[in-house]
Amino acid sequence: MPRELSAIRAARPTAVNLPWAIDRMSNVIARIEAEDAGRVGSARVAACRRALLEEARRIDQEDVDACRALGRHGAALLTNGDTVLTHCNAGALATAGRGTALAVVYEAVENGKRIQVVSDETRPLLQGARLTAWECQKMGVPVTVICDNAAGWILAQGKVQCIIVGADRIAANGDVANKIGTYPLAVLAREHGIPFYVAAPTSTLDLTIASGREIPIEERAAEEVTHPRGTQIAPDGVSAMNPAFDVTPAHLISAIITEKGIVRPPYDLAKKLGTSPPKAEVRE
Amino acid sequence: MPRELSAIRAARPTAVNLPWAIDRMSNVIARIEAEDAGRVGSARVAACRRALLEEARRIDQEDVDACRALGRHGAALLTNGDTVLTHCNAGALATAGRGTALAVVYEAVENGKRIQVVSDETRPLLQGARLTAWECQKMGVPVTVICDNAAGWILAQGKVQCIIVGADRIAANGDVANKIGTYPLAVLAREHGIPFYVAAPTSTLDLTIASGREIPIEERAAEEVTHPRGTQIAPDGVSAMNPAFDVTPAHLISAIITEKGIVRPPYDLAKKLGTSPPKAEVRE
Repeated sequence: MPRELSAIRAARPTAVNLPWAIDRMSNVIARIEAEDAGRVGSARVAACRRALLEEARRIDQEDVDACRALGRHGAALLTNGDTVLTHCNAGALATAGRGTALAVVYEAVENGKRIQVVSDETRPLLQGARLTAWECQKMGVPVTVICDNAAGWILAQGKVQCIIVGADRIAANGDVANKIGTYPLAVLAREHGIPFYVAAPTSTLDLTIASGREIPIEERAAEEVTHPRGTQIAPDGVSAMNPAFDVTPAHLISAIITEKGIVRPPYDLAKKLGTSPPKAEVRE
Repeated sequence: MPRELSAIRAARPTAVNLPWAIDRMSNVIARIEAEDAGRVGSARVAACRRALLEEARRIDQEDVDACRALGRHGAALLTNGDTVLTHCNAGALATAGRGTALAVVYEAVENGKRIQVVSDETRPLLQGARLTAWECQKMGVPVTVICDNAAGWILAQGKVQCIIVGADRIAANGDVANKIGTYPLAVLAREHGIPFYVAAPTSTLDLTIASGREIPIEERAAEEVTHPRGTQIAPDGVSAMNPAFDVTPAHLISAIITEKGIVRPPYDLAKKLGTSPPKAEVRE
């Protein structure tokens, strides 16, 4: 693999979609090189560029379709009048399509259901306050921003009917890596007897790892904690930990919503999602 | 009660220490007025001022003593090498003495134990990042700041041996109101089998209420969420909820550390802490 691709592939250790897409592009290069071994350099480069662009457009369209399809599957889980709590941004701003967790909300709203969103601000990078709130406003979905700290109390007040989040990597056993702060929400959802859903395309699935214990968690710069948006909030020289993701164990997840259908426990994902076409039992 | 005192008394609905102190000052005024009914105005005012200053100094000294005493009781709960997670600021900056949760840490350190603190930044007002981190640095206690979102994952890694927080009001059944985000920590502590301690002087006890359901939760300005430290982080016009406190049910609390001793469940606090001198069974 060319050095530039390897660099991009390794840029973010936790999420699996980026290496997955890089591998698809890399396979195109390998195929062209094998097929066109006889051609002169410039013709081979031109063929390679065309094939890469085609593959990129295919990935883009597949993601658009996957977002749409998983939104349709997931919308059936929402009831008219529901308030959905979400974390980080798992919407149109984070995907080629209309998103994952938010696609479920958008589809339910388009089906005529009144749905409200509560968006965790999602420290340190505040994707919930900056992106999810903006996106919901644009889509005409009522949205309320809260500090991450307030989610537990708002659940305790009975104000939320379900939690839906996206995913950065899903292990074969259903363990899910997602934005830091997701795992506590899953624990709180169980505490309050409300469903905790993960919405993700099957490109997020990593069947090469048996469980979430094998998912590396990216540790990011301390300044994201100590200097949010450039403003210093902690004293000089204080140390900070900044894990960017956490792992939610499968036993806390009520269902995984994919473009192939909704998967319920037990999460034998190699069997339920690893083959193509999708097995009928995953559809609800 | 004079109008100024009533205004201060009602300024913050959740915490009970402020009305408690106002009531003590108010009782001084009532006593002087009753005793000195015969004196002329100016002499009565002078007597009243002297008595109020005395009472204020008494409250101050009592708080210093209570912080010191509860620190001593609590220090016995910590083991050499422990990492303690705390939330908000429950230290010298928040009390007349050396604090509550942090007093426990300081005392253990002075007893020769190596203790580290993990400080939740504590959105929205960031008391953990701004105050607790600064105070621990000044006291020479190693401290690491994390986003509130990271607490669950750090507990899951086994990096924390106990959680200690302060309290704004404790009901007769042991339910505890404290800074928003405390309740999720208690749920997570139980999930990971580590103790969750509340450290507070008995002036925080409100025996007039049977449970936490009767504690009013202060809802503060949305701008604390949408404009932290004056920087806008959410789109114009988005709504926000900003409950400043939450209630942790007594069944999630391993012990309450007071100046009279350590109280374990069952929290029949009227019996265990409501009398003076303290009952022997609360000491450990």
